[in-house]
Amino acid sequence: MIIDCHGHYTTAPKALRAYRDAQITGLKDPSWRPTKAALAISDDEIRASIEGAQRKLQLERGTDLTIFSPQASGMGHHIGDATASQYWSEICNELIYRVCKLFPKNFVAVCQLPQSPGVDPQNCIPELERCVRQMGFIGLNLNPDPSGGYWKEPPLTDRRWYPLYEKMVELEVPAMIHTSASCNPAVHHTGAHYINGDTTAFMQLITGDLFKDFPTLKFIIPHGGGAVPYHWGRYRGLAQDMKKPLLGDHLLKNVYFDTCVYHQPGIDLLTKVIPADNILFASEIVGAVKGIDPETGFHYDDTKRYIEAAPLSAADRAKIFESNAHKVFPRLKAAMAR
Amino acid sequence: MIIDCHGHYTTAPKALRAYRDAQITGLKDPSWRPTKAALAISDDEIRASIEGAQRKLQLERGTDLTIFSPQASGMGHHIGDATASQYWSEICNELIYRVCKLFPKNFVAVCQLPQSPGVDPQNCIPELERCVRQMGFIGLNLNPDPSGGYWKEPPLTDRRWYPLYEKMVELEVPAMIHTSASCNPAVHHTGAHYINGDTTAFMQLITGDLFKDFPTLKFIIPHGGGAVPYHWGRYRGLAQDMKKPLLGDHLLKNVYFDTCVYHQPGIDLLTKVIPADNILFASEIVGAVKGIDPETGFHYDDTKRYIEAAPLSAADRAKIFESNAHKVFPRLKAAMAR
Repeated sequence: MIIDCHGHYTTAPKALRAYRDAQITGLKDPSWRPTKAALAISDDEIRASIEGAQRKLQLERGTDLTIFSPQASGMGHHIGDATASQYWSEICNELIYRVCKLFPKNFVAVCQLPQSPGVDPQNCIPELERCVRQMGFIGLNLNPDPSGGYWKEPPLTDRRWYPLYEKMVELEVPAMIHTSASCNPAVHHTGAHYINGDTTAFMQLITGDLFKDFPTLKFIIPHGGGAVPYHWGRYRGLAQDMKKPLLGDHLLKNVYFDTCVYHQPGIDLLTKVIPADNILFASEIVGAVKGIDPETGFHYDDTKRYIEAAPLSAADRAKIFESNAHKVFPRLKAAMAR
Repeated sequence: MIIDCHGHYTTAPKALRAYRDAQITGLKDPSWRPTKAALAISDDEIRASIEGAQRKLQLERGTDLTIFSPQASGMGHHIGDATASQYWSEICNELIYRVCKLFPKNFVAVCQLPQSPGVDPQNCIPELERCVRQMGFIGLNLNPDPSGGYWKEPPLTDRRWYPLYEKMVELEVPAMIHTSASCNPAVHHTGAHYINGDTTAFMQLITGDLFKDFPTLKFIIPHGGGAVPYHWGRYRGLAQDMKKPLLGDHLLKNVYFDTCVYHQPGIDLLTKVIPADNILFASEIVGAVKGIDPETGFHYDDTKRYIEAAPLSAADRAKIFESNAHKVFPRLKAAMAR
């Protein structure tokens, strides 16, 4: 079985975008509150939006199950306030729940959180609990920069985040550290902000000692870990200069990288430098890059091909494709059984 | 001959730091103005600061010439105003000039600019002209984020930067795109801000069409291009989705990467993915990572070893070690002859 740990609902019916636009317009009118009744999306519309896209690609490429979350750029935590973010997160998470009910063999749910710039992340706990306990979600996306490209929040090692981590540990759910859209004109969202978010988060974790306080907390750094594996010598050296333990001891019991790296040399480097125990298969479909690579004739984001071609043992390939996902997402097995 | 295109004066005599501290304290007193007479550093002190560090490493590692600029993190464009930045840049550039006069065979000068957040970069032109025309400098470091980690300036493709580019073209000097210190507590300077700056700048260049307007303008993206070569498939795919030309045509006639990547697999990826015509040897000494890699027994930043071990032809290695530097820095030959 091949498990893709990183897929987003980028193909949601247009009514979702219209609802969000109305919500954003309504932010200017303090008396306006969006109601869920204003959003009407049928099961047939959801089925069509998945069958023509994510499910079609699963079948074409030979993957089985996608750990599925709302569109990352759509989270837009920098828009409006915590109440707006709460409404919007509930809507998006409920749509993911419906996708997973309609395609129970092929999609398992991960939620977005109602983060908001400057707001204590404790506000996210009720929505996280609702998603996990009531709707069977197995993980969450955590945005390290709710300001959308200006990095106004304290680092992930700050105690401000601790109540959320305590709840994650209690619920046994990992977080993918994933930025949302950039509202900063200097910072392109899929080409710079996503990758920088990965790099910045990993460096925050090197600098701190978070996993001393949370030895079972688990993070996935997406997009192949940003710049980190390419600069693995730099990060080993910076940790050494800071008198931190070797990265294997300091971070790699808790931190995992996905395989959203869209060419063979990148995957070859990732699988050479990072232990197979710390790599999870992912393609980010339908995601950042949509085209076909003229150098290979295949889609850039058909990452399964690169993993298959990488010089890996069968045992390591099986870890990356399947068993590591179970290790990182303890609730995955039960979710698949339902 | 081996030319290192990226070295900083990180070992300047302590009096420089004391002067800067006094300047920063003085910013609170509007009547205070730092004078150059307040800074007394002798030629002997400069000699000692170089002979025990950068020159010692050149001799030990077998490199010949370093293209040398003020400490990047020390530029601190986010501190004070444009006047403070002007004084500070003059001081730092004059010290580089003195280093290059004292070690004429081993160091050639590149300047920092008196950038300041929100200030039109035209303010940098007089200092750039002074450095190039009066003191024989051959290039400049350009900070894409003078706000120090908050990215408040428009992208490098914005017309606001054009007068500076016009002067660069006229003077035939390339820019290394290099951030300075981060004053953002979420963003570590050498582990995140430097690398993110490289990635962000490259993505800005993909998005725009700068080199249509400046076909002879040249940029070096340091630190091996940030995350770019590792995600080369992503960047090729994003450019393709945006209907831009192939990256070879769109950017690689104007953009170069250095080799400040501190492990063999990273250099192997860089030299596999990026044409040898676009790679310049560099080590960033004395720089971000100071230790010895326990896996190799050599300094992480002894990048010459990685280039020597990479599967390159002799011709490509010669381009990386020497001839590309002459191509990118047209004033290098004359500077060496002086």
